Amino acid sequence: MNSWVDSANLPDSDFPLENLPYGVFSARDRHSRIGVAIGDSILDVERAAALALFPGGSEVEVFSRHNLTGLMQLPAAERASFRAALTELLRQGSEAESRGRSRREEILIPIAEARLELPVPIGDYTDFYASIEHATNVGKMFRPDNPLLPNYKYVPIGYHGRASSIVVSGTPITRPSGQTRAPNSDTPSFGPSKMLDYESELGLYIGRGNELGSVISLSDAEDHIFGYCLVNDWSARDIQTWEYQPLGPFLAKNFATTVSPWVVPAEAVDPFRVASRARAADDPAPLDYLSSPRNEERGGIDAHLVVSIRSERMRKEKMEPMQLTKAPFRSMYWTMPQLVTHHASNGCNLKTGDLIASGTVSGPSAEEMGCLLELTRRGADPV
Amino acid sequence: MNSWVDSANLPDSDFPLENLPYGVFSARDRHSRIGVAIGDSILDVERAAALALFPGGSEVEVFSRHNLTGLMQLPAAERASFRAALTELLRQGSEAESRGRSRREEILIPIAEARLELPVPIGDYTDFYASIEHATNVGKMFRPDNPLLPNYKYVPIGYHGRASSIVVSGTPITRPSGQTRAPNSDTPSFGPSKMLDYESELGLYIGRGNELGSVISLSDAEDHIFGYCLVNDWSARDIQTWEYQPLGPFLAKNFATTVSPWVVPAEAVDPFRVASRARAADDPAPLDYLSSPRNEERGGIDAHLVVSIRSERMRKEKMEPMQLTKAPFRSMYWTMPQLVTHHASNGCNLKTGDLIASGTVSGPSAEEMGCLLELTRRGADPV
Repeated sequence: MNSWVDSANLPDSDFPLENLPYGVFSARDRHSRIGVAIGDSILDVERAAALALFPGGSEVEVFSRHNLTGLMQLPAAERASFRAALTELLRQGSEAESRGRSRREEILIPIAEARLELPVPIGDYTDFYASIEHATNVGKMFRPDNPLLPNYKYVPIGYHGRASSIVVSGTPITRPSGQTRAPNSDTPSFGPSKMLDYESELGLYIGRGNELGSVISLSDAEDHIFGYCLVNDWSARDIQTWEYQPLGPFLAKNFATTVSPWVVPAEAVDPFRVASRARAADDPAPLDYLSSPRNEERGGIDAHLVVSIRSERMRKEKMEPMQLTKAPFRSMYWTMPQLVTHHASNGCNLKTGDLIASGTVSGPSAEEMGCLLELTRRGADPV
Repeated sequence: MNSWVDSANLPDSDFPLENLPYGVFSARDRHSRIGVAIGDSILDVERAAALALFPGGSEVEVFSRHNLTGLMQLPAAERASFRAALTELLRQGSEAESRGRSRREEILIPIAEARLELPVPIGDYTDFYASIEHATNVGKMFRPDNPLLPNYKYVPIGYHGRASSIVVSGTPITRPSGQTRAPNSDTPSFGPSKMLDYESELGLYIGRGNELGSVISLSDAEDHIFGYCLVNDWSARDIQTWEYQPLGPFLAKNFATTVSPWVVPAEAVDPFRVASRARAADDPAPLDYLSSPRNEERGGIDAHLVVSIRSERMRKEKMEPMQLTKAPFRSMYWTMPQLVTHHASNGCNLKTGDLIASGTVSGPSAEEMGCLLELTRRGADPV
């Protein structure tokens, strides 16, 4: 399918008509509002609704909010019908094309002229550890004698992160200070982290939540996933090493977490759903609450997470970014629906807008490692 | 000082004139609003402000909100002046007494007739581990060879908890299900927790926050503490044992956390500030950022946390509650200001209404243990 927004049809466009991710932006001196990325532009959803460019129009109240909460709370069928309306408005050859084109200047804003914002107020943020390759690689460094703990193949390991310090892509990150202990020292000292790392992850936003004390069965989990984003779980490895026992990482992580401004709707990811990772012959089967044929057949997502770096010097010398990682998400040990079901399995209430991240996505080979800790073997092999 | 609300002057009143804790309540079929506990009643702050019973009246906008956020954001001097006005309104023999008394029916609501609510939307919740006795007792059970880890006396250990499942005192708690592994089994099973525990803690609410990337020095930390509450960090010990490594407790804790409806203002706690716990001769000194003469002299709080239990059978047989614990808060290894300073030491932004809990408060003796895990030695000595 082509769009009448020509830039969407270029082969390397991030935002073809099949994607249509949601975000929140401000531009032209007006307030923050919902937008949809198409090619090199943002469709101003509020403006398009005000101009009655959508069929129906019953969702106008949702569009007029300043973030995605209202849209995320909609039942799946209503979300799908809105997505269909968006597709029609932007599709080349649709009935709506001429109306859309005639209002082009009013409803399309170049991404380059907009300020992109956090798409939704995030109440709670949870980070999982769902790549067995990442868990094994990191485990080897922190616990050489015991890399993969006995619970890993049964429990989707996760921990709560900090919601207040989640920022949108492009926000400058301040190098954190903290306590670290040098390998040859008995006592720690306080100062700037010397091992600042990224972790490349996929995140999901909860659409409809669940009540405290209720659970989300694996067969219902997909219905609670509104969409997906990219997550960079910034990590200060030297602070983490010293602080993380016995209650997990804290200041090593909570100084900042970056999310992409765009939320790719679950519907757009649907065609890329694939079988979940096959368990090895000697791996245990997941417990019943984490097991279903549908999850086995299409719990996975066929996507690759690519990380590139461009230093200040590279920028000055006009060098291209250098690719560090290209990691296959389908190699994850636990699927996104399993993470949702596990999270609510004790009655914990998930709320609209909650962010759940996968944990670092790493594949089995050296070119597929999703953080510098792994890639450089804790700094032994600098990039 | 006595109040003209007689019940406040009874020797066993929880709410004498010196306390005046803030909360949010609904009653008489009207909306949620701010109240102050005095004796057996709640002063309806919004109503009293509407009747112009406070001197000045500039804070009326704050009072009319449905939670404490506005009040918590006020600079300390304005909060103190409001507290002074409240005290005057309720003090026996004050100039305001006759005006207050004449409106008594309108502004005082029996606590028994009110529904108490969460005092503030809690953005982020952090739980610390600041009692060295608790850390040692628990450590012995989980890691007999290594009860207190090398970082404990340097790092105020903490982890992020779940904000969505924080409920106000009196909310029924559903026993969580989860994965547990029996001691004689290699594989886990899923089912209701058999080791549901409480943890008795003191919590603080952040008043004024800090910007992402900035820190809060120890000398400023008290200014960021709005007030204190009681916290019950419900814990499923059997789930915790199996899931907590390597990233800390997750489903063992996030099914529910209970807070008291009343927030005791920092000003009311001031007279009970005492020297912080003296470190043992062979303990290291805190690092510079966690050290100040003021913190040593008055970082502690002279309060005891008492836990009593009354089972359904005890209730039916009209038995009195049985006291399980009376734990001295002044025995905590880290002070509340140290927890605040440590939390922001990496630039993590704390926000108005964030809840920071101390961790289980346990003293050195058997009668001072703040959870059943310790009291019963993991169930070996039932209560």
